[in-house]
Amino acid sequence: PRPVRAARGTTLSAKSWQTEGPLRMLMNNLDPEVAEHPDELVVYGGTGKAARSWEAYDAIVRTLETLESDETLLVQSGKPVGVFRTHEWAPRVLIANSNLVGDWANWPEFRRLEALGLTMYGQMTAGSWIYIGTQGILQGTYETFAAIGVKLATARGLSAADAANASLAGTLTLTGGCGGMGGAQPLAVTMNEGVVLIVDVDATRLARRVSKGYLDEMTDDIDDAIARVLAAKAEGRALSVGLVGNAATVFPELLARQVPIDIVTDQTSAHDPLSYLPEGVSVEEWRELAASDPEGFTERARASMAKQVKAMVEFQDAGAEVFDYGNSIRAEAKLGGYERAFEFPGFVPAYIRPLFAEGKGPFRWAALSGDPADIAATDRAILELFPEDEHLRRWITAAGEKVHFEGLPARICWLGYKERHLAGLKFNEMVASGELSAPLAIGRDHLDSGSVASPYRETEAMADGSDAIADWPLLNALLNTASGATWVSIHHGGGVGIGRSIHAGQVIVADGTPLAAEKIARVLVNDPGTGVMRHVDAGYPRAVEVARERGLRVPMLPDAD
Amino acid sequence: PRPVRAARGTTLSAKSWQTEGPLRMLMNNLDPEVAEHPDELVVYGGTGKAARSWEAYDAIVRTLETLESDETLLVQSGKPVGVFRTHEWAPRVLIANSNLVGDWANWPEFRRLEALGLTMYGQMTAGSWIYIGTQGILQGTYETFAAIGVKLATARGLSAADAANASLAGTLTLTGGCGGMGGAQPLAVTMNEGVVLIVDVDATRLARRVSKGYLDEMTDDIDDAIARVLAAKAEGRALSVGLVGNAATVFPELLARQVPIDIVTDQTSAHDPLSYLPEGVSVEEWRELAASDPEGFTERARASMAKQVKAMVEFQDAGAEVFDYGNSIRAEAKLGGYERAFEFPGFVPAYIRPLFAEGKGPFRWAALSGDPADIAATDRAILELFPEDEHLRRWITAAGEKVHFEGLPARICWLGYKERHLAGLKFNEMVASGELSAPLAIGRDHLDSGSVASPYRETEAMADGSDAIADWPLLNALLNTASGATWVSIHHGGGVGIGRSIHAGQVIVADGTPLAAEKIARVLVNDPGTGVMRHVDAGYPRAVEVARERGLRVPMLPDAD
Ligand SMILES: NC(=O)c1ccc[n+]([C@@H]2O[C@H](COP(=O)([O-])OP(=O)(O)OC[C@H]3O[C@@H](n4cnc5c(N)ncnc54)[C@H](O)[C@@H]3O)[C@@H](O)[C@H]2O)c1
Ligand SMILES: NC(=O)c1ccc[n+]([C@@H]2O[C@H](COP(=O)([O-])OP(=O)(O)OC[C@H]3O[C@@H](n4cnc5c(N)ncnc54)[C@H](O)[C@@H]3O)[C@@H](O)[C@H]2O)c1
Repeated sequence: PRPVRAARGTTLSAKSWQTEGPLRMLMNNLDPEVAEHPDELVVYGGTGKAARSWEAYDAIVRTLETLESDETLLVQSGKPVGVFRTHEWAPRVLIANSNLVGDWANWPEFRRLEALGLTMYGQMTAGSWIYIGTQGILQGTYETFAAIGVKLATARGLSAADAANASLAGTLTLTGGCGGMGGAQPLAVTMNEGVVLIVDVDATRLARRVSKGYLDEMTDDIDDAIARVLAAKAEGRALSVGLVGNAATVFPELLARQVPIDIVTDQTSAHDPLSYLPEGVSVEEWRELAASDPEGFTERARASMAKQVKAMVEFQDAGAEVFDYGNSIRAEAKLGGYERAFEFPGFVPAYIRPLFAEGKGPFRWAALSGDPADIAATDRAILELFPEDEHLRRWITAAGEKVHFEGLPARICWLGYKERHLAGLKFNEMVASGELSAPLAIGRDHLDSGSVASPYRETEAMADGSDAIADWPLLNALLNTASGATWVSIHHGGGVGIGRSIHAGQVIVADGTPLAAEKIARVLVNDPGTGVMRHVDAGYPRAVEVARERGLRVPMLPDAD
Repeated sequence: PRPVRAARGTTLSAKSWQTEGPLRMLMNNLDPEVAEHPDELVVYGGTGKAARSWEAYDAIVRTLETLESDETLLVQSGKPVGVFRTHEWAPRVLIANSNLVGDWANWPEFRRLEALGLTMYGQMTAGSWIYIGTQGILQGTYETFAAIGVKLATARGLSAADAANASLAGTLTLTGGCGGMGGAQPLAVTMNEGVVLIVDVDATRLARRVSKGYLDEMTDDIDDAIARVLAAKAEGRALSVGLVGNAATVFPELLARQVPIDIVTDQTSAHDPLSYLPEGVSVEEWRELAASDPEGFTERARASMAKQVKAMVEFQDAGAEVFDYGNSIRAEAKLGGYERAFEFPGFVPAYIRPLFAEGKGPFRWAALSGDPADIAATDRAILELFPEDEHLRRWITAAGEKVHFEGLPARICWLGYKERHLAGLKFNEMVASGELSAPLAIGRDHLDSGSVASPYRETEAMADGSDAIADWPLLNALLNTASGATWVSIHHGGGVGIGRSIHAGQVIVADGTPLAAEKIARVLVNDPGTGVMRHVDAGYPRAVEVARERGLRVPMLPDAD
């Protein structure tokens, strides 16, 4: 354990920016400003790690520092296992995290292997070195709550045009979990002008979000919390209040008190039952109990989740908008014995799928210079590139004002097929011209349209029933490897837990060279292209339209080429 | 349905040999001379297909015929789903077959998705277009039986030197299943000078092997069969006899009669319970019953497997050498209720692992010309390249005499790390010089040291307990994609069934160009290199030695650079 912080500026520790990029991004993932538990190499999502151990971390750093531009490092669940001669179009790093053969893809076997030192949990962007702090999720959460605002307004009878500009003003949202990702929820709701009550067992997590400007206020008194949010709701004033408490207790309590809640969701780390605190266990006892009796702890956690989800379903019965926010809490509650758990939908089929059909999803980039001015310059470039996109303009402007950078300055926004490469090529030119002070690392989340198979989240309720087919993320990873990405990863279990997802990531370093431009022109077209392809194959008409309009070649599409 | 046969000669249907290669190899997989059920696109292994449907096949062919040398075709479980612009170092085809998210990785879900037209079973070399007929498995089976000869001789007290040259003369082997792969067993045993009795329910399968010279004789009379094999065993004469019968009936019967059997194994298609005929069902009723009542059929098949495996365990109790030949029959028998099923080992830990530690495994190549003279020339080249390898010489000589080509002429032999590229580079020179009349497709089986996670077969009983870790095959696929392979594939379930394996394949076309030589120098070093790497990580001393001697860079190996 030691504090890690990526180098800033233009002095290289590695032999080129193509290897300096992954090096800085690995270090940035472990920056105490970014990571949730840096000493244990945990970046976010309960147990999502950037490297298997400190010895493995040191060996990765050492290897990246000497890696040549025609060599490739292989990383197996956070441990560097081989260096091979490839070529300059090949990725410099190839990563596979947490993957298990199907019949062994369960938590007990995973933990057995982890205890043997043979694997680690890579989550999504933790083990693939492109986590950028809470901002990463902020935009996605902002988009989701914006879509809910539109939906509620439409339900209230507003015209399509009016609904499109509707906000969450006057609504009250209830959610749980204010950690690495969940901590984006309060700011996302207030950016949409709504009121939110967020419940977390751990006061330090709430305090952290207050200090960073993601959460307005906190309290450990439920009456006080209710009074504050109801006042704001009545005034139509945006406000976020954190309440210290166990969601399994608080959710049913609020239901019983008939607090007028409009929207209910949750982002506790339910996907890993050891990271969900059961009722009757204190935060202090948590880790020891989970370690000493994982099976017993799991049972208790699932029973508490069942209680929480029961309240969520009953909020829905009472008319609230309720959704699973991608943490498998429905599946765990069902294992905990609550039969109605799947009666509310996941957020992807409810709000996000239409964007996925266009290859849209969270696109992001980080300034390897460490200089916030570089991100400001890219913000301006984005606004110039897509002047007609009002929604994007609103986000970029708000983000520029409200987002505190954590670690290397970074930006996220949602762009789709045949949009991302325009940004990438522009950024690469800005590096070449000196307009940016150093190269950028351009990547994306694994919450993505073409690179994920996750039947409780990204691929829940696909039109053709293909939710569980995992060929797609593997093809995405192979194609990104074949297109010139700087690093590529394949993960198992991220987001929703072991046995429940396969997903892939890519990052490309825009170093201002003509070769980088060539690579960007392929990777940032092909990567979202696989999203459109996947939704064409599943029969989404919008994806077919996009494929035709924007020239995606799908051999079995009628009238293809 | 229509008969398919790859073009011969040097006239191209595609735009270059880099796309003509996969085109001819796909067609070759479906050649009636090669495929077990070509009309249903089934190549081998019960249900292992080369393309999802005839429409998909046609679309793949159409696409390959027009694919440019900087484009890449994606194939999702036998269906072409997209064409993307990449670069000339990238693979021309990327394939993912039968992959499912862990919690859904079971036969009922697979069959549901297959019935919806959303996936196909790719087996290993069927869906990755590098099956070369029964010869493909012949060499592996020959190697395995040779290793058993050595083991039995050592057990009889022979010196190491004498044992190394021991054959199976005077021994009797019992096995089941004479299909696409299993049909190699009789010839492999007789090439090792032993006697073998092989049981198959389907007389046409046995007759086919007789007609091809893989099986000497067949009968449907058990007394007759016993008399013939015992006579040959007594005389020390090599002989193979096929017996028409159900292994679940015949194995216990032979045990009860105390026939002096030395070696027992099985290669029925046990990995897929619908492809194993239960007792009491006739070959004629098979397909209809399996289709109309898959669950009931599965239960009956497992009960029969339990009977067969019980006999196998009791043969072992009686002193025979017994092993599972990679078809999951132990796991299925256990599901069928037989508790002692796992008392005999799989063939990999029993005989093959030491070879895997050196990156050794079944390397193969096919003459795209269709001309047997090309293979004869490569046979000579191999003997010249490795003059000191006596074992290899014996195999190549015997293969040249005894192997009847099926489809495009091809050859297989076992070569390891820092050996394969010598062969590949030599072959590429021979293409360039005109010594060969056309390019070769150089690939391998998925029975391989670095590209498979399969806890009942290739990774059974790994020294460090890492059997189920699936990062390794994914890294292998990514690395081959990054190294210049012509096509790369990732499969789930091949060999041992859905939920039980993840594996990867690669094929590279040696077209005589300098670029092909560059690619060969990487792919054919890196691909077996991942096998050595995997066994170094698992702690095999021989792998560590090989890594040190032959210069494999493993960052966390003590004293690594
Ligand atoms: N929808 C998405 O796109 C998306 C994105 C990222 C993460 N997620 C999922 O959201 C979940 C949270 O991720 P994270 O990175 O914020 O995890 P985290 O571990 O950093 O935070 C989880 C928080 O939940 C709190 N918590 C645990 N049990 C609780 C209980 N019983 N009551 C109240 N609070 C409790 C913890 O104290 C912690 O602060 C994960 O399951 C993750 O996979 C979803
Ligand atoms: N160890 C290895 O390296 C290796 C390699 C390839 C295949 N395999 C495995 O071997 C098995 C066979 O593969 P294949 O390609 O030959 O399959 P296949 O379907 O072509 O042949 C299987 C044969 O078994 C026969 N059979 C089925 N039920 C029977 C029964 N009850 N009694 C007697 N015979 C019966 C069938 O008639 C058929 O001829 C598969 O499970 C495959 O995965 C192992």
